Formats: sequence, structure tokens, C-alpha cells
Amino acid sequence: MASGWFYLSCLVLGSLGSMCILFTVYWMQFWCGGFAWDGSTHTFNWHPVLTVAGMVVFYGAGSLVYRLPQSWLGPKLPWKLLHAALHLMAFSLTVMGLVAVFKFHNHNHIANLYSLHSWLGITAVFLFACQWFLGFAIFLLPWASLWLRSLLKPIHVFFGASILSLSIASVISGINEKLFFVLKNATEPYSSLPSQAVFANSTGMLVVAFGLLVLYILLASSWKRPEPGMLTDRQLLLQPRRGSLSLLVTYMPVTTSQPDEPCSPKNRPPVSRCPNSDE
Amino acid sequence: MASGWFYLSCLVLGSLGSMCILFTVYWMQFWCGGFAWDGSTHTFNWHPVLTVAGMVVFYGAGSLVYRLPQSWLGPKLPWKLLHAALHLMAFSLTVMGLVAVFKFHNHNHIANLYSLHSWLGITAVFLFACQWFLGFAIFLLPWASLWLRSLLKPIHVFFGASILSLSIASVISGINEKLFFVLKNATEPYSSLPSQAVFANSTGMLVVAFGLLVLYILLASSWKRPEPGMLTDRQLLLQPRRGSLSLLVTYMPVTTSQPDEPCSPKNRPPVSRCPNSDE
Repeated sequence: MASGWFYLSCLVLGSLGSMCILFTVYWMQFWCGGFAWDGSTHTFNWHPVLTVAGMVVFYGAGSLVYRLPQSWLGPKLPWKLLHAALHLMAFSLTVMGLVAVFKFHNHNHIANLYSLHSWLGITAVFLFACQWFLGFAIFLLPWASLWLRSLLKPIHVFFGASILSLSIASVISGINEKLFFVLKNATEPYSSLPSQAVFANSTGMLVVAFGLLVLYILLASSWKRPEPGMLTDRQLLLQPRRGSLSLLVTYMPVTTSQPDEPCSPKNRPPVSRCPNSDE
Repeated sequence: MASGWFYLSCLVLGSLGSMCILFTVYWMQFWCGGFAWDGSTHTFNWHPVLTVAGMVVFYGAGSLVYRLPQSWLGPKLPWKLLHAALHLMAFSLTVMGLVAVFKFHNHNHIANLYSLHSWLGITAVFLFACQWFLGFAIFLLPWASLWLRSLLKPIHVFFGASILSLSIASVISGINEKLFFVLKNATEPYSSLPSQAVFANSTGMLVVAFGLLVLYILLASSWKRPEPGMLTDRQLLLQPRRGSLSLLVTYMPVTTSQPDEPCSPKNRPPVSRCPNSDE
């Protein structure tokens, strides 16, 4: 059942992600004149497609590598490489999306980075770059200590989710802004909800649905890579190869009296801790 | 140290939340002509102030009630009431903010709910209403079983965080949209970044910073209300009344061999579980 829900979520996620990209391509191709790389408005049209693909879909897919039960057993290095590679691809697509909008702006003497959409978007890309390089240096290269990795892992996960949230906010404000631009002098303004507006608004809502599903899978505790020696019931059900664990460390409840005096390190009762050893 | 970080985060959060509201009031008062309730554009000006206060600041504050170490000991009911009351206040402010924009639109024959900003905003408010009533029925009224509460709690927490994320995306697109409206025919357009644009963009970035800090405090495991009988080291350091726990159930590691045969309920080894008993 747990396994079924997980793979159903992955299927829905794949469909939503594909629809996000395809809907954006269709919007740009059908209503905004298609694509070019000559500095015209058709150059701009690469911007929504590449940033939705990079900062949302590939970024989201790369974030979920460790949620695949197949990644829970055996060496972690191949999964780390896949995680880093998918995010590097996401970052490359995003940078190309930024180049497209800067090229369009510069060609048409439009100022860069003035709207709140652009402030938020560039912040998200900057944080993404920092996150990638820090992740590469700390978690992929073999130099960092286990202590440092354990300390930074929750921060890495939190910033990963935050960057996705910022990206979604940026995409929403970008679609909103683009529709006000292109439907400004149209016979059917944005406020009359012409078909382009309904289509692009729906694309934005799809991006939101995709992002929320990624965050749900990312944060649901039973779909996380188990800590060493600690599996929940649902994680046991998700295990791809049953019976392949010859030794399990489990945690049994023990009742301990606590003295009334202040809790010094000397007399503090033992607490439940699972060292995060192999990040 | 853990306690210091927590209370420092609360201080930063309070400052950021106050600044979000004050900056929005100042923007509307100083650049957009102030407030009224007569259907004019000054009626609209209540919309950003009330929705930022309701859907972001009060909503965020209400979400963090159970992160206060004072709420970890003693009966949970007063804290549940506070959680529900703060969110009811947040919801009331938001509804007033919606009334303001509908009143302005209807008075000026402008269509309602056409932009992506409005689609996302109304979705967030709808989910907020469902979340509040479901939370009230399941977690505050005494009828729901512990099993049902345990099942729904992670979903309640996830949707709580999601609604805040949607609200932030909605606020960002709203500020962006408003600036394009008010600076459309101005002598200094948005693209020349006049002082109003810099101020309102900064307000949007403050809202983002506030939202991310709320999500961080909400999701950081060491600041969560401890599960019954399970405290981490950092949670022990955060405890407001040391020595007040006369009995602690702690978890000690036990090594168990696992047979090679499939993991049926009968021969599955004991796994670490903490029943979520008093939600």
C-alpha cells in the first residue's frame, strides 16, 4: 500500500512535470509566436520554457533521488552523482533561460532586473548556485567530516525546498506579468479571460501542483532514506528487496527515572539519537 | 545554545512580521493615497495590508504555537485554542481583505478573479478555510479517535506549510501586478526603478524572508513538540523547566538478527515507533 502510493505519486509527478513544460512550450509557440535567438520577443519566449523546465521540473526531479527505495541500499555515491547531475542540468537550463531574457532586454534597450519577479528569480538562482557548489564540496567530494555533513544536511534539505518554493513564486509572478504585457492592448484584455489567459493561468496552477507534490514527497517522513539502523513500518513496506538486510539495529523503549536536580551532562538520561553517518 | 537560537529566531520573526505589515501600510498610505471604504482605489488599498497581515503574518505566527517550549508540558488544550484563535483571526483579516478588493472591483466594473494572482490567492484562502474547519473538527473537538488524529496530523502540517507557500507566491505576484498598474503611465515607469518600486520590491522580499523563517522553524526537527517519551538533546536544552519531568521513556539501541525469509507481520523485527497519542 505504502509502495503503491509512492509509485502512484511518482507517476502523477512525471505527468504533471511533463505537462508543465509542454503547456509552457505550447503557450509560447501558439500564442506568442514561437522561438528564435535573434534578440526579438521570440528570443524571450525561451525564458519561461527553460526556467520552468530547469528551476521547477528538473530541479524537483533531482531533489527526489533519495526518495527512491532503490537508493536506500548499497553504495550511496551513484545516487549522489545522479542528484548532482540532475541539478547541474537544471542549473544549465536556468542559466540559458536567463541568457534569453537578458539578450532580449539588451537588444530592445529594456532595463534588466527591475521587477519583483526578477528580484525573486535571481535570488532563487543565486541560492541554487550556492547550494549546488556547497553540496558538491561538502557531500560529494570526500574531504568533509561526517560531523560537518550531519550538521549541514538539514540545512541543505531546507534550502533545497526553499529554492523550489521561491522558484514557484517567481514562475507565478512571471506568468502573471507576461499576461498583463501581452494582453495590454489586445481586443480581449486579460480581465475578459481570453483563451490564452485561461491556458496560461492553468499552466501556472499546474506548476503549483507539481511543486507541492515534490515538497510532499520530499518532506513525508516515511519516504525518506532511512537513518542507519532505523526503519519505520512504512519504510519496511517500501523496501525493494525484502530479506536483504541481515542485521537491523532497532530501538526498544526503556523507562528511566530522572532525578529532580538540573539536567547536567553527567546525570542526563540517555536520549534517542541516530547518528547520521553516511551523508 | 539551542534555546538561544530558538528565541533569536522568534525575535527576528517578530521584527520581520511587523516590518511586513508596516511596510505595506506605508506603501499604501504614502504612495497610493491612503485608505477608505467607499469603493474607490483607496478601498483597494486595504487588500494588500489585510492579506499580508492575515495570510502571512498572523497565519505564520499561529502556525508556530507548538514550537514554543512552554507548550510542550502540561495540558495541550490551551495551546490548541490559541492555535485555532490566531488562525481564525488570520482568516478574518483575509476575508476582509477579499471584501475590500471585490468592493473596489464591483464599484468600478472591473472583473473579479481573472489574474493568476487571484486564482492562486483564492485557492490559498479556500484551502485555509478547509484546513481550519477540518482542524477544528478533528483536533479541537473531542470526538475524533487518536488513530484518526495520528493519521491526519502530518497531512494537516503539510497543508499548513503549503498554504503559507501559496500565500507568499500570491503576495509576490500581487505586489508585482500592483506596481505594473500604478507605474504604467507614470513619469518614472517601473523599469526605471523609482523609489516606490524599490520600496515595494523590498516589502515583497521581506515577506519571502518571513515566510522562509516560519517554514524553517516549523520544519526544524529539534524545535518540534517532542513525541511522547522521546526527547532529543536539543529539545532537552530547550526545556523551559528543567527537572520537572519525573519519568522519561527513552529509547535504547538493541541489535536484532533478521531472518532471510520475507518480512511478514509475524516475524518482522520490532521497529522504532512513537505513537502520536495526544494530538
